[in-house]
Amino acid sequence: MSSDFGPVDQPEDADFILASASPRRQQLLSSMRTRFRVVPADIDETPTPDECPSEYVLRMARGKAEAVYRRSADRDSSGRRLPVLGADTAVIAPAKKSAGEHIFGKPESEDHAVEMLMALSGKPHRVLSALAVVAGDTTAPMSESRLVETEVTFRVLSESECHAYWRSGEPKGKAGAYAIQGLGSIFVTHLVGSYSSVVGLPVAETYTLLQTYNIPCGLSGL
Amino acid sequence: MSSDFGPVDQPEDADFILASASPRRQQLLSSMRTRFRVVPADIDETPTPDECPSEYVLRMARGKAEAVYRRSADRDSSGRRLPVLGADTAVIAPAKKSAGEHIFGKPESEDHAVEMLMALSGKPHRVLSALAVVAGDTTAPMSESRLVETEVTFRVLSESECHAYWRSGEPKGKAGAYAIQGLGSIFVTHLVGSYSSVVGLPVAETYTLLQTYNIPCGLSGL
Repeated sequence: MSSDFGPVDQPEDADFILASASPRRQQLLSSMRTRFRVVPADIDETPTPDECPSEYVLRMARGKAEAVYRRSADRDSSGRRLPVLGADTAVIAPAKKSAGEHIFGKPESEDHAVEMLMALSGKPHRVLSALAVVAGDTTAPMSESRLVETEVTFRVLSESECHAYWRSGEPKGKAGAYAIQGLGSIFVTHLVGSYSSVVGLPVAETYTLLQTYNIPCGLSGL
Repeated sequence: MSSDFGPVDQPEDADFILASASPRRQQLLSSMRTRFRVVPADIDETPTPDECPSEYVLRMARGKAEAVYRRSADRDSSGRRLPVLGADTAVIAPAKKSAGEHIFGKPESEDHAVEMLMALSGKPHRVLSALAVVAGDTTAPMSESRLVETEVTFRVLSESECHAYWRSGEPKGKAGAYAIQGLGSIFVTHLVGSYSSVVGLPVAETYTLLQTYNIPCGLSGL
């Protein structure tokens, strides 16, 4: 059992490692009845200047999975190295792919959060989630990834609403300064794609990816 | 305080009554920071032979709200009668409006659940949610309603998966024999519309409807 990364509540019989500290991802994976250990990856999340949003989230998901895979020595009961799942989610505006598209990260201040929310107000934006699994032999690990795109439309917001939303405490630490699974849901009038992807982990796509690696999940054993 | 209907955990300072026993609706309303009392309506939920699905869910939502409004004597701190919110959700297949469309209710048995899930397998279906608020003077109450339509697409399911899903216990008591907020999420590859509506209560639409009646919710007081 590795303990280098200070993980907590790690089941003895984990089937894979989640390379993310996000409680929302952990909750979604638990709802899929998977057994996993959490080892957050600490990688540089700065986008490169010429990188498009899809490349960025895929690089982040792979980077997190690879970083944890390299450092981990966790093995399953058969002595095989545990596969590592990495994930990344980004909010992109405007919704239409264009030269002016922008990755919305976590807000640095109240003003920054209000600026992002007002930029999302009254129109659709894109949410990209990437998944990556790294598994197999350490010298030649296999890696597979998935990209999921969802369009989310906000109703028209007022600046005073955005300030009030900031005071709720919810925007802090959230990409795009909102949480669709919380109070932020009152802003969302329409969604096209995967709801769970906007929460942080596209469940249907994660399920099929984990199945590729014979990782028990969902209906296994029922 | 009315106690005729055996409600529990009723806040002293409720702003409205929810005419539904669904714990999922109560959870969504709580996430919207509303203060409400629960008084389940016990009405006949049988569709009439010539009724289309939209008419049916609207009649159910209104019927629940009206039934509870008639029986309730709850008043707010100013002595005004509390408004009552009713809601209903139905799963409709096939997705395209047609003469053969069918309202999927709660499964009556394992075979019934598997039959419904297999009918939803590998294609889109519709989920209709209706909201209704009844408020004002008892002799001439005002009523307003909303209808929200969402399209949900399932991946192809096998019969053995459906049986395994039944054994998880989740399909029981759920319209269409699945719960999108639970393990059922592994079936959902695409959604167009409102996720919370599929859970049981369309949050954005409920928010604007409650605002019409000046009921504090969401960002009020922040």
